[in-house]
Amino acid sequence: MRSDIREWIRNNKEELIDMIQRMIQQPSTQRNELGIQRQVSEILNELQFQVDMWEPEVASLKKHQAFISTRDSFQGSPNVVGVKKGVGNGHSLVLNGHVDVVPEGDRKNWVDDPYSGVYKDGKVYGRGSTDMKGANAAMLFALKAIKECGVPLKGDIVFHSVIEEESGGAGTLEAILKGYTADAAIIPEPTQMKIFPKQQGSLWFRLYVKGVSAHGGTRYEGVSAIEKTQIVLDHIKELEQVRNDRIDDPLFSEIPIPIPINIGIIQGGDWPSSVADLVKVEGRYGVSPSETIEEAKAEFKQWMKKLAEKDIWFEKHPIEVEWFGARWLPGSIDTKHPLMNILTNSYEKISGAPPTVEASPWGTDGGLLTYVGNTPSVVFGPGVTSMAHYPNEYIEVDKALHFSEILANTIIDWCNKEKKL
Amino acid sequence: MRSDIREWIRNNKEELIDMIQRMIQQPSTQRNELGIQRQVSEILNELQFQVDMWEPEVASLKKHQAFISTRDSFQGSPNVVGVKKGVGNGHSLVLNGHVDVVPEGDRKNWVDDPYSGVYKDGKVYGRGSTDMKGANAAMLFALKAIKECGVPLKGDIVFHSVIEEESGGAGTLEAILKGYTADAAIIPEPTQMKIFPKQQGSLWFRLYVKGVSAHGGTRYEGVSAIEKTQIVLDHIKELEQVRNDRIDDPLFSEIPIPIPINIGIIQGGDWPSSVADLVKVEGRYGVSPSETIEEAKAEFKQWMKKLAEKDIWFEKHPIEVEWFGARWLPGSIDTKHPLMNILTNSYEKISGAPPTVEASPWGTDGGLLTYVGNTPSVVFGPGVTSMAHYPNEYIEVDKALHFSEILANTIIDWCNKEKKL
Repeated sequence: MRSDIREWIRNNKEELIDMIQRMIQQPSTQRNELGIQRQVSEILNELQFQVDMWEPEVASLKKHQAFISTRDSFQGSPNVVGVKKGVGNGHSLVLNGHVDVVPEGDRKNWVDDPYSGVYKDGKVYGRGSTDMKGANAAMLFALKAIKECGVPLKGDIVFHSVIEEESGGAGTLEAILKGYTADAAIIPEPTQMKIFPKQQGSLWFRLYVKGVSAHGGTRYEGVSAIEKTQIVLDHIKELEQVRNDRIDDPLFSEIPIPIPINIGIIQGGDWPSSVADLVKVEGRYGVSPSETIEEAKAEFKQWMKKLAEKDIWFEKHPIEVEWFGARWLPGSIDTKHPLMNILTNSYEKISGAPPTVEASPWGTDGGLLTYVGNTPSVVFGPGVTSMAHYPNEYIEVDKALHFSEILANTIIDWCNKEKKL
Repeated sequence: MRSDIREWIRNNKEELIDMIQRMIQQPSTQRNELGIQRQVSEILNELQFQVDMWEPEVASLKKHQAFISTRDSFQGSPNVVGVKKGVGNGHSLVLNGHVDVVPEGDRKNWVDDPYSGVYKDGKVYGRGSTDMKGANAAMLFALKAIKECGVPLKGDIVFHSVIEEESGGAGTLEAILKGYTADAAIIPEPTQMKIFPKQQGSLWFRLYVKGVSAHGGTRYEGVSAIEKTQIVLDHIKELEQVRNDRIDDPLFSEIPIPIPINIGIIQGGDWPSSVADLVKVEGRYGVSPSETIEEAKAEFKQWMKKLAEKDIWFEKHPIEVEWFGARWLPGSIDTKHPLMNILTNSYEKISGAPPTVEASPWGTDGGLLTYVGNTPSVVFGPGVTSMAHYPNEYIEVDKALHFSEILANTIIDWCNKEKKL
């Protein structure tokens, strides 16, 4: 049976490439997810899953404290969940993949069109290839291998094809609240085939730095919010240092900055020859699995108060931090959880070497599944972390095939593991 | 004769107030200059000037390298020049005033309607009162005083009533190219009765700082364009220091930063949890009267090349500087120029104290008159610098009268100074 699976996967490589390419050709940035969700629904239908495709409602989601979103409607942005009931008494599994992709950035940095899905030298290129359409396709491909090889499953498979992962997880939250949970979950975000039982959480923050406007020719009569922002950015970098120096969990030992603070957006001033009187800064604040969101927020707030020690300006113009948009709860599964054992064994059997097990440097929807959905989640996928959100993003097809085989074996072992009655 | 002038000016104060009010009541923001130009033409006609009123043509202006404008037509925006020939053998003088005003901004910040021209406590209020309709009216008033007192002039008076000063000087450039130049010029921009023989020029620049995008959770895998921008901004600040340290002209001795470089706009990144791969910076680059625009540009460009010494990143990602939008040539007249002597003497005789003579922190159309029109220009006017472009802008009528008297005396002395044949 294991060798049937391997053979089927090897013989159908072209089908996987084609599936990844078609997914990339749907530019599913935020608010543009309809096309790819229709594709995924069709594939799930072919795999004989019961498919539920619906637009989440903001009004009901808002009632949940874990809901966070910049959107006031999900019209045109459906979630998709496919369920395949097992024959009974096995363990159920959520397979969770998001279809939303981050914007492509400056197109000049791309060799090919970011939505071409071009296949070259064993790689499929395009925005979302590594994060995480290549993995989504590989999951569906593993499910097809199981079906084509006629392997029966005792436990249910719950396939989440969700929106909004890049903006805080409203899609996964909605799937959880609709009851689509399981005994455990696998989320194949791009880990480069490493297994991540812990995931860094994160929050988005926004802050405004104030100045005083003046004519540029007499700029010394004003106070430049841009110059003050430089002080703020240096100060935030020190906070990052302090927070990371504190982390001693061995799962983080290979990660240069376990919980980074990223400054993503800066925007200030409105006229070249005026002194800027306001700068907006937006970024991402990494949260450790060993702290709560509230603790992390409090530390940031406290740190900003110290700015006045560096520049008296901030005493009268303190920096107020606003938490907005996305938030990922840190995620965690016991490293001795049975799914961890099964996955690690499958990996070793198929790869001939044990996997790297470490903490993830970024948040995933695993935090929601773990804490809201009561579904312990492990993150493991074929993409290359460093290519996520990058120009010329790609997925290696051999990695995707390797992942499919490990996943198929893991599914078979987990779903057929009997429940104690 | 001098006392006749003084008496006439004092006796006709109401006429000056009325002229300023009527000018303010024409809201001559960009593209709305027709009404006020008709008024000025009528006044010049009454003063027996030969009046030329015409709409500049973009097509022919574009051929001149000093032309810069956001407009592709000046239809409905005429320039006006009035010429009064002298009896012969005297020195000619350009009197240059712009009729365009900057927009009034948020009307809520105005006590009275910005175009009411209300007269209260010795001040006429309204957009353009200080910059520079009060001064324009005071020039015409001085010319009327000379005429009414029957003082003959040997040299020609060339009165420029121009458009577009606030947007780069297309009106003055057009007047120059049509041949309306002279031996020297006076421009009564709001100097608060200080005499500015030199004026700072300025250019707008734009530059892009590149980085490499990455996921914020592994930000160490990217290169933050925002961090690189901090290096660029520090580097530009050093350039400002170097350029200002070099200035030893005593006219600048009271000015904290004679030729500032102002960073007006910063904009970068497109996602809070991505490493920003591009930042745009726009600003205003002060140009000294002792350098050419080309020299100033070359120094900036050269300085940017030195960035690679600070951070090897810039060797492969050099900063390209783009010059765009507005540009004001620096202006300059020799402090020993005869017009300077005459103006200074007139000031002292009438005021009983010597004037403040310094360099202007902002550009005027004097740069164009000096370098394109070969007409050395001095800037001296009754308005208050800090009220220009501000809500509740006003002109003090006593200052305007004082200015009129000094100007009338200066005109008489300058235009009657005989040319060596």
